[in-house]
Amino acid sequence: MIRPVTLIESVRLSRKLGVQIILASETFQHTGSFKYRAAWNVAKNVPHKQLLAASSGNFGQALAYACQILEKRCTIVMPQDSATVKIKAVREYGATADLIDVRLKTRKERVDELAAELSDVYIASAYDDDLVIAGNSSLGREIAQISTVDTVIAPVGGGGLAAGIVQGLREAGRSLAVVGAEPAMANDAARSLRAGHLVRDITESATIADGARTLSLGERNFAILKQGLGGIVEVSEEQILDAVRLLFHLANLKAEPTGALALGAVLADHERFRGRTVCCVISGGNVDASFYAQILASA
Amino acid sequence: MIRPVTLIESVRLSRKLGVQIILASETFQHTGSFKYRAAWNVAKNVPHKQLLAASSGNFGQALAYACQILEKRCTIVMPQDSATVKIKAVREYGATADLIDVRLKTRKERVDELAAELSDVYIASAYDDDLVIAGNSSLGREIAQISTVDTVIAPVGGGGLAAGIVQGLREAGRSLAVVGAEPAMANDAARSLRAGHLVRDITESATIADGARTLSLGERNFAILKQGLGGIVEVSEEQILDAVRLLFHLANLKAEPTGALALGAVLADHERFRGRTVCCVISGGNVDASFYAQILASA
Repeated sequence: MIRPVTLIESVRLSRKLGVQIILASETFQHTGSFKYRAAWNVAKNVPHKQLLAASSGNFGQALAYACQILEKRCTIVMPQDSATVKIKAVREYGATADLIDVRLKTRKERVDELAAELSDVYIASAYDDDLVIAGNSSLGREIAQISTVDTVIAPVGGGGLAAGIVQGLREAGRSLAVVGAEPAMANDAARSLRAGHLVRDITESATIADGARTLSLGERNFAILKQGLGGIVEVSEEQILDAVRLLFHLANLKAEPTGALALGAVLADHERFRGRTVCCVISGGNVDASFYAQILASA
Repeated sequence: MIRPVTLIESVRLSRKLGVQIILASETFQHTGSFKYRAAWNVAKNVPHKQLLAASSGNFGQALAYACQILEKRCTIVMPQDSATVKIKAVREYGATADLIDVRLKTRKERVDELAAELSDVYIASAYDDDLVIAGNSSLGREIAQISTVDTVIAPVGGGGLAAGIVQGLREAGRSLAVVGAEPAMANDAARSLRAGHLVRDITESATIADGARTLSLGERNFAILKQGLGGIVEVSEEQILDAVRLLFHLANLKAEPTGALALGAVLADHERFRGRTVCCVISGGNVDASFYAQILASA
């Protein structure tokens, strides 16, 4: 039920960057992002008949659709001012969108409240869950099949994707350098790796890579990444935008800003990747049309 | 050297249209459109060391890159007011962009002039050539492998793509309904099929589907299509734009207007496809950022 990753190569993109680039795109995964790998694995493997999560982003849509396929009930807690298209998508996938006023109640408070009300319910985390890492590991095993690659770059928010890739490559017996790509504006993972312990931010960053606004890595993910990651590249907002535009112009690929982080990392630290064959994981493609049009127009 | 077609399914798109849709996207083909299939087949199979074509669009880029790979020389005649990005792309693929003032000289005049000057040169047609149809037939053979499909919709300009698909399906021994999608503003192919003979327009249409502005079908293509095509759907400009936006919103797919014609045909003649499993061929993705941003913003 997982769709295989879509591999895209653009000779113009590779030549422009002086780095051999293979795009591993999850933008055509069910619900438009890699999150479906984890959501499907969670919904399939827990015995509960109901799932509950707080998410205004890709995980909510992914869990909603996985539950619809598996004929389980699903409730997604979302801020009431979430983009209409996101609320609409969750509902189209058959879930209940539970809208809250975050000035009156936090997402966690509402999740706890609902968990007490609902029976036979599993609270799904978007990233700090062994089933999430196991779900994402399927992408690592797929990347392990690309014989020419020597380096993988994956975006880092909560760390579930990068940890899953590290684990999947290990399962496949393939040792490739895995590098994280994180917004410089939300660099808690880079700081955690430098400090050797988990660093938590207090307030959410306003980076345009909204999938990487998490306050900290998941604990399970940090344990995997501090061993398995060959460093993190911090990517500026301008480099993220440039990467979105390069993907549009030279690879015909619509990516959301978080999805373009890995290519942004090549722009940010070009020397590190020169002469290598780099698999850039494009994690998702769900971006509002008006925002995307602005990004294209602001070149 | 041909990249296989990328198959994309979006449950939200299929549900919205009430038709099971499988997108067969050539937007990630080398040079961003199906034209590379033909260009490669022509450049590889003619003995000439030099190729020459008039094209301001996807065929020019495709032929330029095919010749670069095959280490042949290539000249593309283009109007001097072609979009800068298109001239740049042809040059990046190693070809000579021969820019002309079309008020002073037609493309054909310039091609004839160059053909007389250059030695060992083959004049490549973008669509009226057996090698072009044979190149495009590879896509028909690939579509023949999709077991669930019962109908294929392909855009029709010069007719090389649709004719190639008909031929490829026949070679694979698969009998599927193949339907053409043509801009209502440039409906010479629909009129030709109705008349039973080749109809030629005098002036180029201004349809936004610029790949379908050809004045008539190629003669070879018409011979194949009048037998093999199960009709042509005429698509309005608004339906083409709606299809571009639907592909963006519900399938994360960047398509050029010509590439969205097949999905536009489903919008234009919904009843015809209800209950079917339809493979929509998305022929290419090369569209200017500013124009694309306008399309998204004008929803």
